[in-house]
Amino acid sequence: MQNNGGSAHVETTCDIGFIGLGVMGNNLTMNLVDHGYRVACFDLDQNKVDAILDKDASERAKDAAPRVEGCSSYTELLSKLKAPHLIILSVPAGDPVDHVCNHLIDAGIQADDIVVDTGNSLWTDSVAREEQYKGKFIFFSTAVSGGEVGARFGPSLMPSGNPYAWTRIEPVLKSIAAKVDAKTGKPIESFVPGKPVLEGEPCATYIGPVGAGHYVKMVHNGIEYADMQLICEAYQIMRDALHMAPAEIAEVFRRWNNGKLNSYLIEISAEVLEQLDPETNQPLVDVILDKAGQKGTGLWTAVSALQVGSPAQTITAAVFARSISSLKEERVAASSVLAGPEASVFDDEQKVSIINKLEQALYCSKICAYAQGFQLMAMAGKEHGWTLDFGEIAKIWRAGCIIRAVFLQSISKAYENNEELANLLMDPYFAEQITEYQGDWRESIAQAALAGIPCPAMMSALSYYDSYRSAVLPANLLQGQRDYFGAHTYQRLDKPAGKKYHIEWSDPARPQTAIKR
Amino acid sequence: MQNNGGSAHVETTCDIGFIGLGVMGNNLTMNLVDHGYRVACFDLDQNKVDAILDKDASERAKDAAPRVEGCSSYTELLSKLKAPHLIILSVPAGDPVDHVCNHLIDAGIQADDIVVDTGNSLWTDSVAREEQYKGKFIFFSTAVSGGEVGARFGPSLMPSGNPYAWTRIEPVLKSIAAKVDAKTGKPIESFVPGKPVLEGEPCATYIGPVGAGHYVKMVHNGIEYADMQLICEAYQIMRDALHMAPAEIAEVFRRWNNGKLNSYLIEISAEVLEQLDPETNQPLVDVILDKAGQKGTGLWTAVSALQVGSPAQTITAAVFARSISSLKEERVAASSVLAGPEASVFDDEQKVSIINKLEQALYCSKICAYAQGFQLMAMAGKEHGWTLDFGEIAKIWRAGCIIRAVFLQSISKAYENNEELANLLMDPYFAEQITEYQGDWRESIAQAALAGIPCPAMMSALSYYDSYRSAVLPANLLQGQRDYFGAHTYQRLDKPAGKKYHIEWSDPARPQTAIKR
Repeated sequence: MQNNGGSAHVETTCDIGFIGLGVMGNNLTMNLVDHGYRVACFDLDQNKVDAILDKDASERAKDAAPRVEGCSSYTELLSKLKAPHLIILSVPAGDPVDHVCNHLIDAGIQADDIVVDTGNSLWTDSVAREEQYKGKFIFFSTAVSGGEVGARFGPSLMPSGNPYAWTRIEPVLKSIAAKVDAKTGKPIESFVPGKPVLEGEPCATYIGPVGAGHYVKMVHNGIEYADMQLICEAYQIMRDALHMAPAEIAEVFRRWNNGKLNSYLIEISAEVLEQLDPETNQPLVDVILDKAGQKGTGLWTAVSALQVGSPAQTITAAVFARSISSLKEERVAASSVLAGPEASVFDDEQKVSIINKLEQALYCSKICAYAQGFQLMAMAGKEHGWTLDFGEIAKIWRAGCIIRAVFLQSISKAYENNEELANLLMDPYFAEQITEYQGDWRESIAQAALAGIPCPAMMSALSYYDSYRSAVLPANLLQGQRDYFGAHTYQRLDKPAGKKYHIEWSDPARPQTAIKR
Repeated sequence: MQNNGGSAHVETTCDIGFIGLGVMGNNLTMNLVDHGYRVACFDLDQNKVDAILDKDASERAKDAAPRVEGCSSYTELLSKLKAPHLIILSVPAGDPVDHVCNHLIDAGIQADDIVVDTGNSLWTDSVAREEQYKGKFIFFSTAVSGGEVGARFGPSLMPSGNPYAWTRIEPVLKSIAAKVDAKTGKPIESFVPGKPVLEGEPCATYIGPVGAGHYVKMVHNGIEYADMQLICEAYQIMRDALHMAPAEIAEVFRRWNNGKLNSYLIEISAEVLEQLDPETNQPLVDVILDKAGQKGTGLWTAVSALQVGSPAQTITAAVFARSISSLKEERVAASSVLAGPEASVFDDEQKVSIINKLEQALYCSKICAYAQGFQLMAMAGKEHGWTLDFGEIAKIWRAGCIIRAVFLQSISKAYENNEELANLLMDPYFAEQITEYQGDWRESIAQAALAGIPCPAMMSALSYYDSYRSAVLPANLLQGQRDYFGAHTYQRLDKPAGKKYHIEWSDPARPQTAIKR
């Protein structure tokens, strides 16, 4: 099926059908042809079909045969494919997916044909669709991370669904996925069209039953929210407490990017901070409005964490930070009414010390945010009956996606060393890292609290850490309160788990009764 | 309809039908008869009907006629009621409500009869039911707060639905509701059966269209979660950093209860902490397992806040605190692996100072938690088209419900002084209070961070305050990041709101383009 090396195909039939040629679809298609697949393309908008034919013509080797074929109907698309058919969709999540599926049924798709949805579908929709289309064709879902550039040159892929279908899809997805140097954990970069990366570990692994892949992608995005917010908090501390200019802060991020914080998000933060506004020649960041948008995946992650009972509080803090940012007019009004502490002035030595501590604060907070994401996947996996391989999941996030970082190599190792790891914090390496740096983390947060700089995500990460390592939380008092006003009962430390007790608080003698289960 | 003074009724027909005689239903019924209503009662469990007949017999004046009549069917219940019928339900939320409604239809309920659901229904279910039963009868919903004791002697009631129905229900609900001394804002207590409180402002006000009452009750519970968690954090600081015994902490709470923290929850916290275990004679709180239960309303509030985009982060932190508390076994294991800072030792003077600061920290955090709750109701109200009267809502929470506190008198005043108040923090009184006490608040949090005591709710409250008063948050960098990796665009401070821009980050020249809307 695969024919590497870019030589021209001679078959008259295509390997893959591709439906939906928007930004993502167009780039995924070009990625496929770069890896030797011959693709039949269809889009409701004929211009998009023409565009990809042109793109292929301009990029393929001289004298080489076209690598894509345009189709003007679902029937034509099916007729051009080798059987059993493999069709990939890149259409907006929701109704459009079902629209296409139903048209494919009308066009004569067969029961052993495979349809792979690569859109941003809600994971529960994918579960419903697998069931709905059973017997008509095999519905399979693959979450794609990495945006436009990832789609073109190597995304991170989170496929899930029918295992038989996976055996047929695997070589395709692994060929187009981002690749990682197994030793260093770093992405193998290739940004030359027509020169696909063939070496290295592919960022694509089978996640589990249908829906699991999109769930894992959703948590990836939740972690991404937290990671971005933590970086922003470090930026705000440098900007508002240390009065540093964007270029100076960019320099700090560049330096951090050479150390344990090395990651795509730190790297682009430096680039954004260095960027001048083409209009005013001021730092661009200073003219950008501080209202954050959101597309919903961070919110979905937070909602799922609440429902599963997994304390993903740093991810949630990041979602709320975006909400509060959008109240710009209220904040401006409040800024002149609500008092803060008096500003401190720091000399250069103090400044250097604060920045160095801040690096450790960001690092420790980041460990906690990732620990929350993996804990959420574990708890959700248990609830939904998925056996998730966290070592593999960390591996496929090392390249191609937004949170790519060397850091994920360490996470992967943690789960490879201990598949039953209860929490990332319990891995000896990460436990030791936080032990080493927690003093700086705590001081950074204490200083921010005293200085009046908000750092909701960093604080939530610290309280996650301190709560998780508390053998005794104050929930004993809380259960006492609940039993007092609502007869909600409590358990006792000295009695078997699950056995419930209640005190008759309104009775002066306050007798305790054991509640029958 | 109302016949105060406890004299015997002579009518052969009843004023109100009551269906569902569980703990809440039984107590609400007795509350109704205490206020002179004659009630026809029905429950699927005949024993519960018998129980309320016995209770009435034991409590009513000698020689007085029975105030309740037992029924053995829906038809019999309807036959005993004056027309148009007023029926109150106290059955479990969900299907049982519809089960009863459908039986009432079969039994011949009329279009102008009213059914009042007092259960813990999800507010969207109430909205659906009003529509579903239109033309058969008027479905009305009333959220009830205050538990068993509240139901019996005066709950806080949040009725919502058809305004015509409200005019008929209003005297009934206002008579059984908790009463407040309008001047002091304190509850007028009455715990003597048969001696109803008739004076004072009733804790019942019309909230709005059906569903609104249950939504407001849901937010009440979210605030309750936050309030309880904040108290628990203060307790943990005293317990783990200051090594105080439960009785000593109870004393502190008693003292606080005489000041601005005066509230039911502080009061019962002291009582719980003072309680000895009848089995071991140790402080009961020390034998209670520190795993918090939850019934879901806090979670619903947090989910709604995420969906509405209202930063109710302290309420959410409280929900997550319960989640993490339930991971007891993991926490015990983690406590011996994950390091914390070295413990400090404090002399008596320092201890007194820390406790005094903690009082202010709890107070400021509490203001923020309530600000979040009211902000959430405002944002949700806008979304759902409800015109909520926050002055009135604060008033009906001054008594009868779990969060009752003099504090709510100040909130009520804030909204009476300015109906358009954007945020509780912007009220001059609360702004001034936080200005005065924020130094202690910040120091308490800084110390907890350095001491390794988790205080997720207090920290989230502080970062809410500092975010809300930030004219410029770091979301400008975040929008730069989003535009960099996902072409999500940004707005400019120097251009009209809503106009979107994008930089071609992958182009070396990086031109900026204005995006057409």
